[in-house]
Amino acid sequence: MSTDFQPHFTDIKVRGYHLDLYGHVNNARYLEFLEEARWGFTDSHGSLDYFTAAGIAFVIVNVNINYRRAALMGEELRIETAMKKIGSRSGVIHQVVKLKGTDTVVADADVTFVIFDTKRNAAMSMDGELRAMFERLPMWPAKEHKAH
Amino acid sequence: MSTDFQPHFTDIKVRGYHLDLYGHVNNARYLEFLEEARWGFTDSHGSLDYFTAAGIAFVIVNVNINYRRAALMGEELRIETAMKKIGSRSGVIHQVVKLKGTDTVVADADVTFVIFDTKRNAAMSMDGELRAMFERLPMWPAKEHKAH
Amino acid sequence: MSTDFQPHFTDIKVRGYHLDLYGHVNNARYLEFLEEARWGFTDSHGSLDYFTAAGIAFVIVNVNINYRRAALMGEELRIETAMKKIGSRSGVIHQVVKLKGTDTVVADADVTFVIFDTKRNAAMSMDGELRAMFERLPMWPAKEHKAH
Amino acid sequence: MSTDFQPHFTDIKVRGYHLDLYGHVNNARYLEFLEEARWGFTDSHGSLDYFTAAGIAFVIVNVNINYRRAALMGEELRIETAMKKIGSRSGVIHQVVKLKGTDTVVADADVTFVIFDTKRNAAMSMDGELRAMFERLPMWPAKEHKAH
Repeated sequence: MSTDFQPHFTDIKVRGYHLDLYGHVNNARYLEFLEEARWGFTDSHGSLDYFTAAGIAFVIVNVNINYRRAALMGEELRIETAMKKIGSRSGVIHQVVKLKGTDTVVADADVTFVIFDTKRNAAMSMDGELRAMFERLPMWPAKEHKAH
Repeated sequence: MSTDFQPHFTDIKVRGYHLDLYGHVNNARYLEFLEEARWGFTDSHGSLDYFTAAGIAFVIVNVNINYRRAALMGEELRIETAMKKIGSRSGVIHQVVKLKGTDTVVADADVTFVIFDTKRNAAMSMDGELRAMFERLPMWPAKEHKAH
Repeated sequence: MSTDFQPHFTDIKVRGYHLDLYGHVNNARYLEFLEEARWGFTDSHGSLDYFTAAGIAFVIVNVNINYRRAALMGEELRIETAMKKIGSRSGVIHQVVKLKGTDTVVADADVTFVIFDTKRNAAMSMDGELRAMFERLPMWPAKEHKAH
Repeated sequence: MSTDFQPHFTDIKVRGYHLDLYGHVNNARYLEFLEEARWGFTDSHGSLDYFTAAGIAFVIVNVNINYRRAALMGEELRIETAMKKIGSRSGVIHQVVKLKGTDTVVADADVTFVIFDTKRNAAMSMDGELRAMFERLPMWPAKEHKAH
């Protein structure tokens, strides 16, 4: 609950090819926006190298996304990304898409993942070094998260 | 729970451009597959004309998707689509992506929508003619749905 | 020029997620439509297995696409695909996107490719068994092609 | 040929969802990269507002793209965009995708467009104020362009 919490920020401007029939960003496109933001989150914390070296893969098992307000041509979006939960065998990343510079939420999502050991072909327990790595990532404060 | 329930079927073969870094169909692409299947579902039941004529729009407010098994190059997928729930102000479509000809579930999703009156700029109550239209669509039997 | 020439046909119906800002199928999306049609072309002639077995890859080096008429929501497109030219080190596939059941051309493209030997890391000469394989594919008659 | 020519720059980092079967950025995706860069080019020169106000649309009639080197996961691309030609009824934008910070060309494209008068439903002549607007944009020097 410290005041210095800061999620990772990714900015995207809505372009013509993001839109669909209704002139709104298409539902599927948001999942690309969220993936873009998660790669940025990963870049900022160096975990991709760790994963590649360890022969493990980040596998998404569930996405639960709320579409709260249509995003329109030319609007600037800011995606906030941070960890929400680290369980025993899975984790949850929470991502919020806002109109940049405002509190208007365009979409928000919980993205549940497992860490997969590609050699043993099985999900790994989130403990030891692996758990420590996720615990070093920015985590949504319990209170702030409830607001969504 | 009659035995003659039949969801709408949409078949898609996995192609090179559907895949990502891991050689699996990308998470975002499934939302396009699901949208494709919903348009097929709509085509089969003529509701698009009704919507256009009535000045109303189908707006998705939540997608909750489970990714259960990676889909690979050349695999044939069958998407089963039917209504799951018709609430007072929203509805839920349930969609299951299987390996065609098998019971292997690749992904399944609940897609929650509202019907939006574009003239009044507000979600409509799901009653009267509108509710009747949705009640005429195929609906997942309670039991079969639980299996997922 | 024989009357029994028949390109490969792939049918695609324009959906909401294919459209962009202008309510037209987006320029980039056509390249996915063309790729879809080439995979169908390949499926029909069994060459993918040959490629995989031989450790060779199909690599596109140029796409030259004309956008002739916007495609709109709900329109049914038919993509015609056949070989146009087999050179000494590259080949050209010509693809025409029409409104299904009409002669109206929506888009047409020349797609130039090389066959890449992934072991030697070099483009292969189009001769011997490789050339024979391409010569067995449907080829646009010189005259018909000029019409485009 | 002056030394102060500067195209518009757009930077894109290759992410997992950009890749396809071969682990390379997919052919279709480059057209989205080029569109992203053209919107940035437009943003920098304020022409979108002009277009919207004048009831005219920018319509692409041909894309001729060379794929010169596969782009891989994590690579940083820089897209250079400038005018190549202003004809009497059409124009050409030339775009070059390089590995950022190098002269390695990943792809380059000529994008031919017409300006469409949506009220008269016809392509406009590129003269008067319209031509002047395009002449104020950065233009590839004849010599530098030949290098591609």
